[in-house]
Amino acid sequence: MSLLFVAPDRNLSEWKKHIHRIDPNIETDIWPAIKNKDRVQFAVCWNQPQHLLDSFPNIKAVSSLGAGVDHLLSDDSLPESIEIARIVSPSLIRQMKEYVLGAVINIQRNLPQYIRQSDQGKWQIHRHELSKNLRIGIMGLGAIGQPVAEQLVKTGFQVSGWARSSKELEDIECFAGPDKLSLFLSDINILVCLLPLTDATRDILDLKVFKELPSDAWIINAARGEHLVDEDLIYALDSNLLQGAWLDVFKEEPLPDKHAFWNRSNIIITPHIASITQPAEAAEQIVENYKRALSGMDLRNAVDREKGY
Amino acid sequence: MSLLFVAPDRNLSEWKKHIHRIDPNIETDIWPAIKNKDRVQFAVCWNQPQHLLDSFPNIKAVSSLGAGVDHLLSDDSLPESIEIARIVSPSLIRQMKEYVLGAVINIQRNLPQYIRQSDQGKWQIHRHELSKNLRIGIMGLGAIGQPVAEQLVKTGFQVSGWARSSKELEDIECFAGPDKLSLFLSDINILVCLLPLTDATRDILDLKVFKELPSDAWIINAARGEHLVDEDLIYALDSNLLQGAWLDVFKEEPLPDKHAFWNRSNIIITPHIASITQPAEAAEQIVENYKRALSGMDLRNAVDREKGY
Repeated sequence: MSLLFVAPDRNLSEWKKHIHRIDPNIETDIWPAIKNKDRVQFAVCWNQPQHLLDSFPNIKAVSSLGAGVDHLLSDDSLPESIEIARIVSPSLIRQMKEYVLGAVINIQRNLPQYIRQSDQGKWQIHRHELSKNLRIGIMGLGAIGQPVAEQLVKTGFQVSGWARSSKELEDIECFAGPDKLSLFLSDINILVCLLPLTDATRDILDLKVFKELPSDAWIINAARGEHLVDEDLIYALDSNLLQGAWLDVFKEEPLPDKHAFWNRSNIIITPHIASITQPAEAAEQIVENYKRALSGMDLRNAVDREKGY
Repeated sequence: MSLLFVAPDRNLSEWKKHIHRIDPNIETDIWPAIKNKDRVQFAVCWNQPQHLLDSFPNIKAVSSLGAGVDHLLSDDSLPESIEIARIVSPSLIRQMKEYVLGAVINIQRNLPQYIRQSDQGKWQIHRHELSKNLRIGIMGLGAIGQPVAEQLVKTGFQVSGWARSSKELEDIECFAGPDKLSLFLSDINILVCLLPLTDATRDILDLKVFKELPSDAWIINAARGEHLVDEDLIYALDSNLLQGAWLDVFKEEPLPDKHAFWNRSNIIITPHIASITQPAEAAEQIVENYKRALSGMDLRNAVDREKGY
């Protein structure tokens, strides 16, 4: 039996090291160097080449290398019978909490302007709003969105949440389903997208949404580039329907040199660093799911294919 | 009886409005337009001209317009018999918690670099350390330092604190007095100065301190410009004894155009905006202390002249 890692352009030697720290007897393969295709029973994938996975006849289950699974669900070569899991780790959640909090405080406190002014030798005060007077809207209230929302409440912000199904969360005004989206958006100062990428959420950050937000709103996208309609964002910013955007994810990464998002004072770009899977921590979950798959047991953090996350 | 406001270059009309919202019968003067010097019994001051206060023969007590009182303690014209108070408001504390948290996350997550890269069209990933592996050192564990330290603990950072007298705070490693300063500094990744300005703390952020910090440390100064020895900071940065500085306060404000702090990628400057007194909230404390002073009662948030805060 072998555990296969597939992640083009990533150095996977640290992952292998942590797997062997936990159990030195686990046989591993790192794509494209595969010793024996028949022995592969479990694969850990990130942006795997399409139609790669159907070349392993004995594969029992697959795990994502991170929290997102859209690259696995959209892979036609993965039979319906194969269970899919994702990494849900305290560290992924904590990093996302920090990242969103950092982005929100940067926007609230005009920190990007002050950083630019530091470089320009310019002393100019910009008015800031108190956190208790700002409402942050979290789209997606799952394993990541909910703790992010709770952290913002603890820090003193007003928080609303929007999800597919209705939730009751302390001190968070919750909205559910497409019918309630407009109402949710109407009083949001900073909109944060933490949705899973599914057919229902693809292109959700579009001109319709931007028009429903107050015109001085910001958006933060830390989910997937495919949630955002790029040209609608530029149009909304240039038409003063939106004040700014803080983006960590893009349809194409690295973001191409000529992309319209670069070199604009009202778009802040971070290079997909909001939450980075820590091999030391994730390896524990991978080894557990590997053993569960071999034993025919259900996976931990299994994905519901119907829902898409 | 009259309540006097003295704050050169500030628009005090909003303060007056909030005082009158609480009690429309309070007579107010705004320096330099004073109706009758003899009637002034209470003064609220921020950077008042030296030797102004001894021209009011019936003054009973004085309040700072903010949390700092160094401008009052250093004013020779203020007789020892006059009680001094400062503003301690939930909003001042909350703003400082947000500001320090924002600065810490910016430093941890390399956000200033990413903001500059956004403006340059550059996609480059910089490694970040997890919050659980970073130790933040808070200098000053008073009405502001303590909640800031606790907020950082809640967000997931390791926190040490250093104060004049010993404290016991949950999950914060506390050090007290000059003898323990070196030990406190030895493993700090980000040092945050929130000390009151006294003879003992003036120029405390000097080359000796920078040498005792790890060489990849950052400092954040959100207290007073006089805590920092400007030339020692430049020397430490240029000698790679320190990685960077995030500064909100300066000996001279606005920071002069030619100051060496401008235009350096390893110094972030914010124009004294960390925590701004909110007139609506502070007016309540001022009215209460005004009435206490007239009644001969002790002031709330009175300052210990011996300690200097």
